Amino acid sequence: MTIKVDKIRSFVYSVFKELGLSNDYAKKSMEVILQAELTGVLTHGLAKLPFYVMRYRNNGENINPDYKIINNHKSNILLDADNGSGLIIGPIALEMCIDRTKKNGISTIVIKNSGHFGCGNYYSWKFAEENLIGIVMTNTSPLMAPYGGKKREIGTNPITISIPAKNHDPIILDMATSIAAYGKIQVAATEKKNIPFGWAKDREGLPTDDPFKALEGTIEPLGSYKGYGLAVIVDALTSLLANSEFGDKITSIDGLNTESRECVSHFMLGIDPSTFYNINEFLDYVDFYIEYMKNSPKAKGVEEIFLPGEIEFRKFRANNINGLSINKDQSDKLMRMIDELDLNPNGYSNFEEFINNSY
Amino acid sequence: MTIKVDKIRSFVYSVFKELGLSNDYAKKSMEVILQAELTGVLTHGLAKLPFYVMRYRNNGENINPDYKIINNHKSNILLDADNGSGLIIGPIALEMCIDRTKKNGISTIVIKNSGHFGCGNYYSWKFAEENLIGIVMTNTSPLMAPYGGKKREIGTNPITISIPAKNHDPIILDMATSIAAYGKIQVAATEKKNIPFGWAKDREGLPTDDPFKALEGTIEPLGSYKGYGLAVIVDALTSLLANSEFGDKITSIDGLNTESRECVSHFMLGIDPSTFYNINEFLDYVDFYIEYMKNSPKAKGVEEIFLPGEIEFRKFRANNINGLSINKDQSDKLMRMIDELDLNPNGYSNFEEFINNSY
Repeated sequence: MTIKVDKIRSFVYSVFKELGLSNDYAKKSMEVILQAELTGVLTHGLAKLPFYVMRYRNNGENINPDYKIINNHKSNILLDADNGSGLIIGPIALEMCIDRTKKNGISTIVIKNSGHFGCGNYYSWKFAEENLIGIVMTNTSPLMAPYGGKKREIGTNPITISIPAKNHDPIILDMATSIAAYGKIQVAATEKKNIPFGWAKDREGLPTDDPFKALEGTIEPLGSYKGYGLAVIVDALTSLLANSEFGDKITSIDGLNTESRECVSHFMLGIDPSTFYNINEFLDYVDFYIEYMKNSPKAKGVEEIFLPGEIEFRKFRANNINGLSINKDQSDKLMRMIDELDLNPNGYSNFEEFINNSY
Repeated sequence: MTIKVDKIRSFVYSVFKELGLSNDYAKKSMEVILQAELTGVLTHGLAKLPFYVMRYRNNGENINPDYKIINNHKSNILLDADNGSGLIIGPIALEMCIDRTKKNGISTIVIKNSGHFGCGNYYSWKFAEENLIGIVMTNTSPLMAPYGGKKREIGTNPITISIPAKNHDPIILDMATSIAAYGKIQVAATEKKNIPFGWAKDREGLPTDDPFKALEGTIEPLGSYKGYGLAVIVDALTSLLANSEFGDKITSIDGLNTESRECVSHFMLGIDPSTFYNINEFLDYVDFYIEYMKNSPKAKGVEEIFLPGEIEFRKFRANNINGLSINKDQSDKLMRMIDELDLNPNGYSNFEEFINNSY
């Protein structure tokens, strides 16, 4: 089924309102979820909504956090999120960082005691909209071993970076420091298919192509020791700079663990290019770079060269025009959540009927 | 042969002095070369010395650059290096960035019109010695294609990052954004051995395991589109933020091209952890993280877990104690350079004899 984006927006907003979020917080959270769904980061979109619902209902995350700036030094802020939902705290911290970057030319905010902050490109897009370079990182619950280890100690620790452009879409890097997504291994297990060697190790720390052994073991960093190094740096800039939890002290939020504090930390850094030279010249120059790379000779069989993040902008525009496509499995899960939240007084039997008549 | 480090230091210093560098610049350049050799980054150590010599003699790089701050905005500096040698400009810019970081808690310096700045870990070690987090990037002459392309447009664009510690060695990430070093493909070609698929593409942009085809083509980014994305971000933070050259406008400095300006740009960012919380607590916490990871259960067959950069610190200490081991090929090349520079009035016939009697 295909649903109009406005209806999905209203629906997600009303779910967050139903859970007790203020109008402002419900809108912020909804925007992060929609960004994921619209840009095709489907693991962090509607598929993640029931997860947030469960955690909010079980007080795993705070929907009205008493967040506090615990250190404030010119360009640098350390924020204690009071176990607030990452969908609320992430956008709040981002606003602080953007504001401080515009004032000082550069700024860093480090956030402790937060929760899963959703789709990374939400944050880098916002920096780019303000004509700022943004570097955003978060630690996550552990799935990777240190290099040579076999125990899950380090998250997939994603990094997202924005370079604003003028007439073109900004350049947006948004990547985990693992070689493959955990979700892909889960899918392979469901479909009883082998995974490529190099994606994961078993519980003894040995390479495996068996997805079931991989799910008991660890997933591999991007490019071996280089991805391990990047993931360690993300740990350092988030949990160490925040003086907060790392390793097995980060709660796994997979599955049914909906009550424990997650204790993740985030790092956001903004740079204002206008402090180096004229902003219009800079944005023109980024456009020129994008055109130069897109017009570079193509490899045999390749139709188009893409800049990082370009495909997500295309998906975003197409989805806004065509509406969001939702499969049966997804809509069934949403209906179960809707019924649990008692949001379906008219008793519609499927998601399409429910959403088209309710919003 | 094994040579005492002090003798190598004196020798390299005298080479730079012979080329006309001031005492200060000769010392700076020597330190960068020694750092590479001592930490085992052998491509950037003594092996690179004849390259710098040729470029300095042919005025490919300026040994007395009239470098200028062309924009100065609180924490952010744009520096024009006047085609100065990267071995001189790199350390100068680093000092500016460290100074500004201590003053403001955070600082960025972007450098245009520079040359090859040597071994990346020189810069991150210096940040760490000052108890600062440092992020340093440089673009390089192109060896990688944009994703889907076949022409060399993007350098191997390395990134180095430091996290200072207290009793342990700092955590130092120092990596190219390519999957393998170009030098390894050159070695495979010399030895007529195949390279692994995934390291390189041929001139049509198709995967190859033939090192000769690879040398005519492009080398692959780390982890496919992720490494491509990282390399593009390095381009943006160096050449775009510096309003300077990128793509095929960066001169290849391989081989005999010793006269052309290289036109690379660098990016250095310092963060003072003491602006977030007490520096002693921070350094203790980094130590705790390092111990935690090193004590994590090891995979079958693994004797020790290493943190990023740890092996280079061990090599550095061992080399300082034991001296530097130099093979026949290396010492022959150095002797040719020494003779060309007329540094061997006593006519010693080999490097060991020359250096042990001259310094």
